[in-house]
Amino acid sequence: MGEQTFSYNQLFNFTKTVFNKIGCNKKDSITASESLLSADLRGIDSHGVARLSGYVRLWEVKRVNASPEIKVIHETASTAVVDGDSGLGLVVAPFAMQIAIEKAKQAGTGWVSVQNSNHFGIAAHHAMMALQFDMIGMAMTNASPLVAPTFSVDRMLGTNPICVAVPAGEEPAFVADLATTTAANGKLEILQRKNQRAPVGWIQDKDGNSSTDPHELKKGGALLPLGGDKEHGSHKGYALGAVVDIFSGLLSGANYAPWVPPFPAYVPMPEEQPGKGIGHFFGAMRIDAFRPGKDFKKNMDHWIRGFRKAKPVAGEKKVLIPGDPEREMQENRMKEGIALIEPVIKDLEQLAAKFNVSFQ
Amino acid sequence: MGEQTFSYNQLFNFTKTVFNKIGCNKKDSITASESLLSADLRGIDSHGVARLSGYVRLWEVKRVNASPEIKVIHETASTAVVDGDSGLGLVVAPFAMQIAIEKAKQAGTGWVSVQNSNHFGIAAHHAMMALQFDMIGMAMTNASPLVAPTFSVDRMLGTNPICVAVPAGEEPAFVADLATTTAANGKLEILQRKNQRAPVGWIQDKDGNSSTDPHELKKGGALLPLGGDKEHGSHKGYALGAVVDIFSGLLSGANYAPWVPPFPAYVPMPEEQPGKGIGHFFGAMRIDAFRPGKDFKKNMDHWIRGFRKAKPVAGEKKVLIPGDPEREMQENRMKEGIALIEPVIKDLEQLAAKFNVSFQ
Repeated sequence: MGEQTFSYNQLFNFTKTVFNKIGCNKKDSITASESLLSADLRGIDSHGVARLSGYVRLWEVKRVNASPEIKVIHETASTAVVDGDSGLGLVVAPFAMQIAIEKAKQAGTGWVSVQNSNHFGIAAHHAMMALQFDMIGMAMTNASPLVAPTFSVDRMLGTNPICVAVPAGEEPAFVADLATTTAANGKLEILQRKNQRAPVGWIQDKDGNSSTDPHELKKGGALLPLGGDKEHGSHKGYALGAVVDIFSGLLSGANYAPWVPPFPAYVPMPEEQPGKGIGHFFGAMRIDAFRPGKDFKKNMDHWIRGFRKAKPVAGEKKVLIPGDPEREMQENRMKEGIALIEPVIKDLEQLAAKFNVSFQ
Repeated sequence: MGEQTFSYNQLFNFTKTVFNKIGCNKKDSITASESLLSADLRGIDSHGVARLSGYVRLWEVKRVNASPEIKVIHETASTAVVDGDSGLGLVVAPFAMQIAIEKAKQAGTGWVSVQNSNHFGIAAHHAMMALQFDMIGMAMTNASPLVAPTFSVDRMLGTNPICVAVPAGEEPAFVADLATTTAANGKLEILQRKNQRAPVGWIQDKDGNSSTDPHELKKGGALLPLGGDKEHGSHKGYALGAVVDIFSGLLSGANYAPWVPPFPAYVPMPEEQPGKGIGHFFGAMRIDAFRPGKDFKKNMDHWIRGFRKAKPVAGEKKVLIPGDPEREMQENRMKEGIALIEPVIKDLEQLAAKFNVSFQ
């Protein structure tokens, strides 16, 4: 496939222009572009500019409000609920995370549940906002139902990711960002393009039988919770995805479970809507609300170095710390640029034509 | 194997007597017995009375302090750090969870990290304390290193469980309690007794090769993180176990990673001890710090009923809600009694002889 490499700035300027064209103000266009492109930088290609046209289509069918009035609708010393006013999750999420951080400054920790939002890109971008304040950051979101719980034929949950970002001292931060499924949907898309089978434990067919066909989701199949099957702990992945749904959807008053609005604009909205939009959940914990930062960071460095020194299995160079591959990818892509595959480039060119702006 | 059934009260009175004999005061003996026996009631047989003699041996080698001065050593509006003074985790954990609940009453949420503790039994018992206050409860703990992270030969983490308990309305509470490994150690013990092989993905041998021998841990092997191998997402189980370790061990100043003290009293303490004892982490979030309780509970009932109505795969009766099997077990065992296997009964009889009290 034809690939072409673009600089971060080039993609950033284009993305910013597109968000501006759909009606986002200057500040929101920048915020949304930073959120979106953090995925490309970190190597989560399925969640970056490849999705820009998807967000535009949601705006076209009036499911995204480009000039939302995002506001806090309830709060206590350490909590808040945010109404995203159908805004881009890419903008709503940083707003809500900032409130979690402000709460943590005052009360030690801050916890914000969000209703009436849309897809927020990658969780890590938002959770990592806490790092510069010497806080642990957390971000999670519910998402379109693609996942069958243990023993279920029906899709009841999204891939519902959890991110936890922890500051260290001299070592880089620990950043765990994980879908609560065996594999994220983006990995299936890669297999589809390469015409390869999926490993057992990733998906099931429309009748609930194990399958290795990466196209299964289009035929009524489902992704499987982390663990794959009951014998390998899929009830645990299911439970974790459920917790994300409860914190994001039910604590906020957003939709939840199979009633979460789908990302593709052509998929009709669920008839039943028990809440508003998509839900997210953010947390910030000030390190020094527990211990002096320097003591904690000394221990984090010790922890990280201990794991790096662990003996690797044959064929592997070393034990990785969560966030290592993404950080290395980001360093590389900021220098070398971001390679996009042909379908994504075409998609961006069509967007450029639609808004009469230049892409390349 | 010879099994015999005992009433909850019979086991409770014996357990309370034993804790009293090692020097726990009356209140702590009751608290510890409630914590310990909640495991037997919920069907987590590996963590209940089967471990009573293990706790006694830790006291005998002076690693458990039977009359600890448990205290808060640091706090903010929504956080606290508790020093367990080497007490039984079975007593320290409820103390710390109660502080999380009190913080939540005032600040919306409460988060307590604990140092200098010991094994606390099952996480669910402590997390569920929040339910009666219309709060979401959370509990986690680090534990003796038995788990090899992805790509590691070395054991670096414990089975590090996470529990999240969520109140519902007319439906019973949602209670997810999960080790962050594919299978908990207790499941290996069952296979050992039955002389059966373990499924692929549960364990590796001392060189890091996949194994199905349930005795592998005694030969230098390791449990595997939830997911089993990289292809099935073991880096996610590893990351979750790491988060539990960081929240429990590093936020509190307890030991962490491979330096967590072992549960068996005959295993020597690690030479290096970067902190104090074992660490736990507890959280409580007041539902009405986010939304009116009745709205949330209505949605939780709707959520739970939606999952119960999902179409089950062939051969299964229904989709379960996290906590269903344990709650049913508890109802049954409160009525019918708790069946203990012969080795456990012998163990308890030896304890009875040691303290010159009656067991049966």
